[in-house]
Amino acid sequence: MSTSGGVRVEKGNQDRPEGRPFVVGVAGGSGSGKSTICGAIVDRIGPEQVALIAHDAYYRHRPEISYEERTKVNYDHPDSLETELLLTHLESLAAGETIEHPLYDFSRHLRRSRTVSIPPRPVIVVEGILTLVEPDLRDALDLRVFVDTDPDLRVLRRVERDMRERGRSFESIVAQYQATVKPMHERYVEPSKRHADLIIPEGYNRQAVGALVARIREVLDRP
Amino acid sequence: MSTSGGVRVEKGNQDRPEGRPFVVGVAGGSGSGKSTICGAIVDRIGPEQVALIAHDAYYRHRPEISYEERTKVNYDHPDSLETELLLTHLESLAAGETIEHPLYDFSRHLRRSRTVSIPPRPVIVVEGILTLVEPDLRDALDLRVFVDTDPDLRVLRRVERDMRERGRSFESIVAQYQATVKPMHERYVEPSKRHADLIIPEGYNRQAVGALVARIREVLDRP
Repeated sequence: MSTSGGVRVEKGNQDRPEGRPFVVGVAGGSGSGKSTICGAIVDRIGPEQVALIAHDAYYRHRPEISYEERTKVNYDHPDSLETELLLTHLESLAAGETIEHPLYDFSRHLRRSRTVSIPPRPVIVVEGILTLVEPDLRDALDLRVFVDTDPDLRVLRRVERDMRERGRSFESIVAQYQATVKPMHERYVEPSKRHADLIIPEGYNRQAVGALVARIREVLDRP
Repeated sequence: MSTSGGVRVEKGNQDRPEGRPFVVGVAGGSGSGKSTICGAIVDRIGPEQVALIAHDAYYRHRPEISYEERTKVNYDHPDSLETELLLTHLESLAAGETIEHPLYDFSRHLRRSRTVSIPPRPVIVVEGILTLVEPDLRDALDLRVFVDTDPDLRVLRRVERDMRERGRSFESIVAQYQATVKPMHERYVEPSKRHADLIIPEGYNRQAVGALVARIREVLDRP
Protein backbone atom coordinates (compact mmCIF):
# COMPACT_ATOMS: atom_id res chain seq x y z
CA MET A 1 0.00 0.00 0.00
CA SER A 2 2.91 2.33 0.55
CA THR A 3 3.91 4.67 -2.25
CA SER A 4 7.42 3.30 -2.16
CA GLY A 5 5.98 0.07 -3.57
CA GLY A 6 6.62 1.08 -7.15
CA VAL A 7 10.26 0.16 -7.55
CA ARG A 8 11.97 2.71 -9.70
CA VAL A 9 15.61 3.30 -10.31
CA GLU A 10 16.31 6.63 -8.72
CA LYS A 11 18.60 8.80 -10.69
CA GLY A 12 19.25 12.38 -9.86
CA ASN A 13 17.35 13.40 -6.82
CA GLN A 14 17.04 10.77 -4.13
CA ASP A 15 14.68 13.06 -2.25
CA ARG A 16 12.23 13.22 -5.11
CA PRO A 17 12.48 10.52 -7.74
CA GLU A 18 11.65 11.89 -11.16
CA GLY A 19 8.05 12.86 -11.54
CA ARG A 20 7.08 12.05 -7.99
CA PRO A 21 5.84 14.76 -5.65
CA PHE A 22 7.52 15.53 -2.35
CA VAL A 23 4.96 14.70 0.32
CA VAL A 24 5.00 16.58 3.64
CA GLY A 25 2.77 15.52 6.51
CA VAL A 26 1.89 18.05 9.20
CA ALA A 27 0.36 16.51 12.31
CA GLY A 28 -0.35 17.80 15.81
CA GLY A 29 -3.21 18.13 18.25
CA SER A 30 -6.37 20.07 17.68
CA GLY A 31 -5.58 23.79 17.87
CA SER A 32 -1.82 23.27 17.66
CA GLY A 33 -1.34 25.67 14.77
CA LYS A 34 -1.06 23.17 11.89
CA SER A 35 -3.17 25.24 9.50
CA THR A 36 -1.15 28.39 10.05
CA ILE A 37 2.05 26.51 9.29
CA CYS A 38 0.57 24.80 6.22
CA GLY A 39 -0.78 28.15 5.01
CA ALA A 40 2.66 29.71 5.39
CA ILE A 41 4.22 26.84 3.42
CA VAL A 42 1.69 27.24 0.60
CA ASP A 43 2.17 31.03 0.55
CA ARG A 44 5.92 30.86 0.43
CA ILE A 45 6.35 27.92 -1.96
CA GLY A 46 3.54 29.24 -4.15
CA PRO A 47 0.01 27.83 -4.42
CA GLU A 48 0.65 26.63 -7.98
CA GLN A 49 3.35 24.29 -6.64
CA VAL A 50 1.51 22.80 -3.65
CA ALA A 51 -1.48 20.51 -3.29
CA LEU A 52 -2.87 20.95 0.22
CA ILE A 53 -4.86 17.99 1.50
CA ALA A 54 -6.89 18.08 4.71
CA HIS A 55 -7.03 14.67 6.36
CA ASP A 56 -10.21 15.68 8.19
CA ALA A 57 -12.01 16.24 4.88
CA TYR A 58 -11.81 12.47 4.57
CA TYR A 59 -14.17 11.66 7.44
CA ARG A 60 -16.19 8.64 6.40
CA HIS A 61 -19.42 9.45 4.57
CA ARG A 62 -22.22 7.57 6.31
CA PRO A 63 -25.58 8.79 5.03
CA GLU A 64 -27.06 5.37 5.84
CA ILE A 65 -27.08 6.10 9.58
CA SER A 66 -29.20 8.81 11.19
CA TYR A 67 -27.96 12.27 12.14
CA GLU A 68 -28.45 11.29 15.77
CA GLU A 69 -26.16 8.29 15.33
CA ARG A 70 -23.65 10.35 13.38
CA THR A 71 -23.32 12.83 16.24
CA LYS A 72 -22.28 9.93 18.45
CA VAL A 73 -19.39 8.83 16.24
CA ASN A 74 -15.98 9.32 17.80
CA TYR A 75 -14.46 11.73 15.29
CA ASP A 76 -11.15 11.78 17.10
CA HIS A 77 -10.55 8.07 16.50
CA PRO A 78 -8.50 7.07 13.43
CA ASP A 79 -11.30 4.77 12.23
CA SER A 80 -13.57 7.75 11.62
CA LEU A 81 -11.35 8.75 8.69
CA GLU A 82 -11.32 7.15 5.25
CA THR A 83 -7.53 7.21 5.17
CA GLU A 84 -7.55 4.54 2.45
CA LEU A 85 -9.19 7.05 0.10
CA LEU A 86 -6.56 9.65 0.99
CA LEU A 87 -3.85 7.10 0.19
CA THR A 88 -5.48 6.36 -3.17
CA HIS A 89 -5.52 10.10 -3.84
CA LEU A 90 -1.83 10.42 -2.99
CA GLU A 91 -1.08 7.62 -5.45
CA SER A 92 -3.21 9.27 -8.12
CA LEU A 93 -1.43 12.60 -7.66
CA ALA A 94 1.93 10.81 -7.86
CA ALA A 95 0.73 9.17 -11.07
CA GLY A 96 -0.03 12.60 -12.53
CA GLU A 97 -3.80 12.43 -12.11
CA THR A 98 -6.16 15.08 -10.78
CA ILE A 99 -8.06 14.10 -7.65
CA GLU A 100 -11.44 15.10 -6.29
CA HIS A 101 -10.69 16.28 -2.76
CA PRO A 102 -13.78 15.79 -0.60
CA LEU A 103 -15.46 18.58 1.33
CA TYR A 104 -16.95 17.75 4.69
CA ASP A 105 -19.94 19.36 6.32
CA PHE A 106 -19.08 19.38 10.01
CA SER A 107 -22.55 20.52 11.07
CA ARG A 108 -24.38 17.66 9.28
CA HIS A 109 -21.52 15.15 9.74
CA LEU A 110 -21.70 14.28 6.05
CA ARG A 111 -19.49 14.65 3.05
CA ARG A 112 -20.76 17.32 0.69
CA SER A 113 -21.67 16.31 -2.84
CA ARG A 114 -19.34 18.97 -4.15
CA THR A 115 -15.61 18.24 -4.33
CA VAL A 116 -12.53 20.30 -5.15
CA SER A 117 -10.38 19.23 -8.09
CA ILE A 118 -6.70 19.20 -7.19
CA PRO A 119 -4.27 18.71 -10.04
CA PRO A 120 -0.90 17.00 -9.51
CA ARG A 121 1.71 19.32 -8.03
CA PRO A 122 5.39 18.85 -7.16
CA VAL A 123 4.63 19.29 -3.45
CA ILE A 124 1.81 17.72 -1.46
CA VAL A 125 1.08 18.82 2.09
CA VAL A 126 -1.17 16.55 4.13
CA GLU A 127 -2.51 18.23 7.24
CA GLY A 128 -4.31 16.50 10.07
CA ILE A 129 -4.41 15.55 13.71
CA LEU A 130 -3.91 11.86 12.94
CA THR A 131 -1.57 12.16 9.96
CA LEU A 132 1.30 10.36 11.70
CA VAL A 133 -0.86 7.67 13.30
CA GLU A 134 -1.52 5.22 10.44
CA PRO A 135 1.59 3.33 9.30
CA ASP A 136 0.49 3.31 5.63
CA LEU A 137 0.02 7.04 5.60
CA ARG A 138 3.33 7.61 7.41
CA ASP A 139 5.07 5.51 4.77
CA ALA A 140 3.62 7.74 2.06
CA LEU A 141 5.21 10.85 3.61
CA ASP A 142 8.68 12.06 2.72
CA LEU A 143 8.88 14.60 5.56
CA ARG A 144 6.96 14.14 8.80
CA VAL A 145 6.29 17.21 10.92
CA PHE A 146 4.55 17.39 14.28
CA VAL A 147 3.36 20.69 15.72
CA ASP A 148 3.66 20.38 19.49
CA THR A 149 1.71 23.01 21.37
CA ASP A 150 0.72 23.02 25.05
CA PRO A 151 -2.74 21.56 25.72
CA ASP A 152 -4.05 24.72 27.40
CA LEU A 153 -3.22 26.86 24.37
CA ARG A 154 -4.66 24.23 22.06
CA VAL A 155 -7.97 23.94 23.85
CA LEU A 156 -8.42 27.72 23.87
CA ARG A 157 -7.88 27.85 20.10
CA ARG A 158 -10.26 24.96 19.58
CA VAL A 159 -13.01 26.57 21.62
CA GLU A 160 -12.59 29.83 19.75
CA ARG A 161 -12.65 28.13 16.34
CA ASP A 162 -15.57 25.80 17.05
CA MET A 163 -17.70 28.64 18.37
CA ARG A 164 -16.86 30.91 15.43
CA GLU A 165 -16.67 28.51 12.50
CA ARG A 166 -18.87 25.63 13.46
CA GLY A 167 -21.49 27.43 15.51
CA ARG A 168 -21.18 25.17 18.53
CA SER A 169 -21.92 26.16 22.12
CA PHE A 170 -19.14 26.41 24.69
CA GLU A 171 -20.76 23.64 26.72
CA SER A 172 -20.95 21.20 23.81
CA ILE A 173 -17.34 21.92 22.88
CA VAL A 174 -16.18 21.22 26.43
CA ALA A 175 -18.25 18.04 26.59
CA GLN A 176 -16.77 16.76 23.33
CA TYR A 177 -13.27 17.79 24.39
CA GLN A 178 -13.48 15.74 27.56
CA ALA A 179 -15.32 12.80 26.01
CA THR A 180 -13.18 12.20 22.93
CA VAL A 181 -10.72 14.95 21.96
CA LYS A 182 -8.52 14.70 25.04
CA PRO A 183 -8.53 10.90 25.47
CA MET A 184 -7.92 10.30 21.76
CA HIS A 185 -5.16 12.90 21.78
CA GLU A 186 -3.42 11.09 24.58
CA ARG A 187 -3.98 7.69 23.01
CA TYR A 188 -3.16 8.41 19.36
CA VAL A 189 -1.91 11.93 18.63
CA GLU A 190 0.67 12.43 21.35
CA PRO A 191 2.34 9.01 20.82
CA SER A 192 2.51 9.64 17.05
CA LYS A 193 4.96 12.46 17.75
CA ARG A 194 7.79 9.96 17.92
CA HIS A 195 7.34 9.25 14.23
CA ALA A 196 8.08 12.86 13.33
CA ASP A 197 11.28 13.92 11.60
CA LEU A 198 10.84 17.43 12.99
CA ILE A 199 8.82 18.82 15.85
CA ILE A 200 7.77 22.46 15.86
CA PRO A 201 7.09 23.69 19.41
CA GLU A 202 4.23 26.09 20.06
CA GLY A 203 2.83 26.46 16.59
CA TYR A 204 4.09 28.95 14.04
CA ASN A 205 7.60 30.24 14.34
CA ARG A 206 9.53 31.95 11.61
CA GLN A 207 12.67 29.83 11.80
CA ALA A 208 10.79 26.53 11.79
CA VAL A 209 8.71 27.48 8.79
CA GLY A 210 11.86 28.87 7.18
CA ALA A 211 13.54 25.48 7.55
CA LEU A 212 10.57 23.59 6.10
CA VAL A 213 10.29 26.01 3.19
CA ALA A 214 14.03 25.87 2.54
CA ARG A 215 13.92 22.08 2.51
CA ILE A 216 10.98 22.00 0.10
CA ARG A 217 12.61 24.58 -2.18
CA GLU A 218 15.82 22.58 -2.21
CA VAL A 219 13.95 19.44 -3.26
CA LEU A 220 12.10 21.39 -5.98
CA ASP A 221 15.23 23.05 -7.32
CA ARG A 222 17.03 19.77 -7.84
CA PRO A 223 14.95 17.61 -10.12
CA MET B 1 20.26 48.18 -1.25
CA SER B 2 17.33 48.59 -3.65
CA THR B 3 18.08 50.25 -6.92
CA SER B 4 15.43 52.24 -8.72
CA GLY B 5 15.22 50.15 -11.87
CA GLY B 6 16.76 47.03 -10.42
CA VAL B 7 15.07 43.68 -10.06
CA ARG B 8 15.99 43.16 -6.46
CA VAL B 9 14.07 45.09 -3.89
CA GLU B 10 15.51 43.16 -0.97
CA LYS B 11 17.49 45.35 1.31
CA GLY B 12 20.09 43.01 2.54
CA ASN B 13 18.98 39.73 4.02
CA GLN B 14 16.76 39.90 7.03
CA ASP B 15 17.97 36.43 8.00
CA ARG B 16 21.58 37.46 7.89
CA PRO B 17 22.35 41.16 7.94
CA GLU B 18 25.32 41.93 5.76
CA GLY B 19 28.55 40.57 7.12
CA ARG B 20 27.00 38.86 10.10
CA PRO B 21 27.20 35.11 10.49
CA PHE B 22 24.11 32.93 10.80
CA VAL B 23 24.29 31.40 14.28
CA VAL B 24 22.71 27.99 14.93
CA GLY B 25 22.44 26.60 18.45
CA VAL B 26 22.10 22.85 18.93
CA ALA B 27 21.03 21.84 22.44
CA GLY B 28 19.79 18.60 23.99
CA GLY B 29 20.59 16.27 26.83
CA SER B 30 23.80 14.37 27.29
CA GLY B 31 23.93 11.57 24.72
CA SER B 32 21.06 12.96 22.64
CA GLY B 33 22.99 12.93 19.37
CA LYS B 34 23.92 16.62 19.14
CA SER B 35 27.45 15.96 17.90
CA THR B 36 26.29 13.66 15.12
CA ILE B 37 23.88 16.31 13.91
CA CYS B 38 26.46 19.10 14.15
CA GLY B 39 28.99 16.92 12.33
CA ALA B 40 26.49 16.27 9.54
CA ILE B 41 25.82 20.02 9.23
CA VAL B 42 29.53 20.80 9.01
CA ASP B 43 30.08 18.01 6.45
CA ARG B 44 27.22 19.07 4.24
CA ILE B 45 27.66 22.84 4.41
CA GLY B 46 31.43 22.48 4.14
CA PRO B 47 33.97 22.91 6.95
CA GLU B 48 35.32 26.10 5.36
CA GLN B 49 31.92 27.73 5.83
CA VAL B 50 31.18 26.71 9.42
CA ALA B 51 32.73 27.59 12.77
CA LEU B 52 31.81 24.85 15.25
CA ILE B 53 31.87 25.94 18.87
CA ALA B 54 31.52 23.50 21.77
CA HIS B 55 29.83 25.12 24.75
CA ASP B 56 31.42 22.54 27.06
CA ALA B 57 34.90 23.65 26.02
CA TYR B 58 34.06 26.81 27.97
CA TYR B 59 33.97 25.19 31.41
CA ARG B 60 35.43 27.68 33.85
CA HIS B 61 39.18 27.40 34.32
CA ARG B 62 39.83 27.20 38.04
CA PRO B 63 43.45 26.24 38.65
CA GLU B 64 43.31 28.06 42.02
CA ILE B 65 41.27 25.28 43.60
CA SER B 66 42.55 21.76 44.14
CA TYR B 67 41.85 18.80 41.87
CA GLU B 68 39.81 17.29 44.69
CA GLU B 69 37.63 20.38 44.86
CA ARG B 70 37.34 20.52 41.07
CA THR B 71 35.95 16.99 40.94
CA LYS B 72 33.16 18.15 43.23
CA VAL B 73 32.02 20.97 40.95
CA ASN B 74 28.57 20.44 39.45
CA TYR B 75 29.50 20.41 35.77
CA ASP B 76 25.88 20.07 34.72
CA HIS B 77 24.91 23.41 36.22
CA PRO B 78 24.95 26.49 33.93
CA ASP B 79 27.27 28.34 36.32
CA SER B 80 30.08 25.87 35.60
CA LEU B 81 30.36 27.34 32.11
CA GLU B 82 32.03 30.61 31.18
CA THR B 83 29.21 31.48 28.82
CA GLU B 84 30.23 35.16 28.93
CA LEU B 85 33.48 34.24 27.17
CA LEU B 86 31.53 32.29 24.55
CA LEU B 87 29.35 35.36 23.99
CA THR B 88 32.44 37.54 23.59
CA HIS B 89 33.73 35.04 21.05
CA LEU B 90 30.47 35.14 19.11
CA GLU B 91 30.71 38.92 18.98
CA SER B 92 34.33 38.75 17.85
CA LEU B 93 33.48 36.33 15.05
CA ALA B 94 30.60 38.58 13.97
CA ALA B 95 33.07 41.48 13.91
CA GLY B 96 35.32 39.51 11.57
CA GLU B 97 37.92 38.53 14.16
CA THR B 98 39.54 35.15 14.74
CA ILE B 99 38.90 33.63 18.16
CA GLU B 100 40.90 31.29 20.32
CA HIS B 101 38.49 28.44 21.08
CA PRO B 102 39.47 26.85 24.41
CA LEU B 103 40.23 23.16 24.81
CA TYR B 104 39.15 21.48 28.00
CA ASP B 105 40.83 18.58 29.73
CA PHE B 106 37.99 16.57 31.20
CA SER B 107 40.27 14.29 33.19
CA ARG B 108 42.07 17.13 35.01
CA HIS B 109 39.03 19.45 35.01
CA LEU B 110 41.17 22.27 33.64
CA ARG B 111 41.37 24.27 30.47
CA ARG B 112 44.38 23.30 28.40
CA SER B 113 46.95 25.97 27.63
CA ARG B 114 46.57 25.20 23.93
CA THR B 115 43.65 26.75 22.03
CA VAL B 116 42.26 26.34 18.52
CA SER B 117 42.12 29.39 16.28
CA ILE B 118 38.76 29.73 14.58
CA PRO B 119 38.49 32.35 11.85
CA PRO B 120 35.19 34.11 11.14
CA ARG B 121 32.84 32.05 9.00
CA PRO B 122 29.40 32.73 7.52
CA VAL B 123 27.85 30.02 9.72
CA ILE B 124 28.47 29.41 13.42
CA VAL B 125 27.15 26.28 15.12
CA VAL B 126 27.13 26.31 18.93
CA GLU B 127 26.68 22.87 20.42
CA GLY B 128 25.97 22.11 24.05
CA ILE B 129 23.64 20.68 26.63
CA LEU B 130 22.85 24.11 28.09
CA THR B 131 22.92 26.17 24.91
CA LEU B 132 19.26 27.20 25.17
CA VAL B 133 19.33 27.83 28.92
CA GLU B 134 20.97 31.26 29.22
CA PRO B 135 18.85 34.11 27.85
CA ASP B 136 21.88 36.05 26.58
CA LEU B 137 23.11 33.06 24.61
CA ARG B 138 19.65 32.32 23.26
CA ASP B 139 19.41 35.90 22.04
CA ALA B 140 22.66 35.45 20.13
CA LEU B 141 21.22 32.49 18.17
CA ASP B 142 19.38 32.88 14.89
CA LEU B 143 18.11 29.28 14.81
CA ARG B 144 17.54 27.27 17.98
CA VAL B 145 17.50 23.49 17.70
CA PHE B 146 16.84 20.96 20.47
CA VAL B 147 17.67 17.29 20.02
CA ASP B 148 15.10 15.36 22.05
CA THR B 149 16.08 11.77 22.70
CA ASP B 150 14.63 9.37 25.26
CA PRO B 151 16.53 9.31 28.57
CA ASP B 152 17.27 5.58 28.39
CA LEU B 153 18.95 5.90 25.00
CA ARG B 154 20.83 8.97 26.17
CA VAL B 155 22.22 7.37 29.30
CA LEU B 156 23.43 4.33 27.35
CA ARG B 157 25.30 6.58 24.92
CA ARG B 158 26.76 8.59 27.77
CA VAL B 159 28.02 5.51 29.58
CA GLU B 160 29.58 4.18 26.40
CA ARG B 161 31.28 7.51 25.61
CA ASP B 162 32.54 8.22 29.12
CA MET B 163 34.04 4.74 29.44
CA ARG B 164 35.69 4.89 26.02
CA GLU B 165 36.75 8.54 25.71
CA ARG B 166 37.19 9.70 29.26
CA GLY B 167 38.38 6.50 30.90
CA ARG B 168 35.81 6.53 33.69
CA SER B 169 34.45 3.50 35.47
CA PHE B 170 30.85 2.42 35.04
CA GLU B 171 30.21 3.00 38.75
CA SER B 172 31.53 6.57 38.72
CA ILE B 173 29.50 7.38 35.62
CA VAL B 174 26.31 6.10 37.23
CA ALA B 175 27.05 7.99 40.44
CA GLN B 176 27.60 11.24 38.55
CA TYR B 177 24.53 10.62 36.41
CA GLN B 178 22.31 10.28 39.44
CA ALA B 179 23.96 13.06 41.44
CA THR B 180 24.02 15.83 38.84
CA VAL B 181 23.37 14.83 35.22
CA LYS B 182 19.79 13.71 35.71
CA PRO B 183 18.65 16.38 38.18
CA MET B 184 20.27 19.18 36.18
CA HIS B 185 18.75 17.78 33.00
CA GLU B 186 15.31 17.93 34.52
CA ARG B 187 15.89 21.36 36.01
CA TYR B 188 17.63 23.14 33.12
CA VAL B 189 17.94 21.15 29.92
CA GLU B 190 14.43 19.74 29.53
CA PRO B 191 12.67 23.07 30.25
CA SER B 192 14.96 24.86 27.76
CA LYS B 193 13.31 22.81 24.99
CA ARG B 194 10.48 25.29 24.86
CA HIS B 195 12.85 27.94 23.56
CA ALA B 196 13.68 25.84 20.50
CA ASP B 197 12.50 26.76 17.02
CA LEU B 198 12.82 23.15 15.96
CA ILE B 199 12.98 19.90 17.90
CA ILE B 200 14.61 16.84 16.39
CA PRO B 201 13.29 13.66 17.99
CA GLU B 202 15.63 10.74 18.65
CA GLY B 203 18.88 12.17 17.38
CA TYR B 204 20.01 12.06 13.77
CA ASN B 205 17.45 11.70 11.07
CA ARG B 206 17.99 12.43 7.43
CA GLN B 207 14.99 14.68 6.90
CA ALA B 208 15.68 16.81 9.96
CA VAL B 209 19.30 17.36 9.04
CA GLY B 210 18.15 17.97 5.46
CA ALA B 211 15.87 20.77 6.64
CA LEU B 212 18.58 22.40 8.77
CA VAL B 213 21.10 22.18 5.95
CA ALA B 214 18.60 23.54 3.43
CA ARG B 215 17.82 26.46 5.70
CA ILE B 216 21.50 27.27 6.22
CA ARG B 217 22.21 26.99 2.49
CA GLU B 218 19.32 29.31 1.74
CA VAL B 219 20.65 31.92 4.12
CA LEU B 220 24.14 31.59 2.63
CA ASP B 221 22.94 31.83 -0.95
CA ARG B 222 21.12 35.08 -0.39
CA PRO B 223 23.61 37.57 0.90
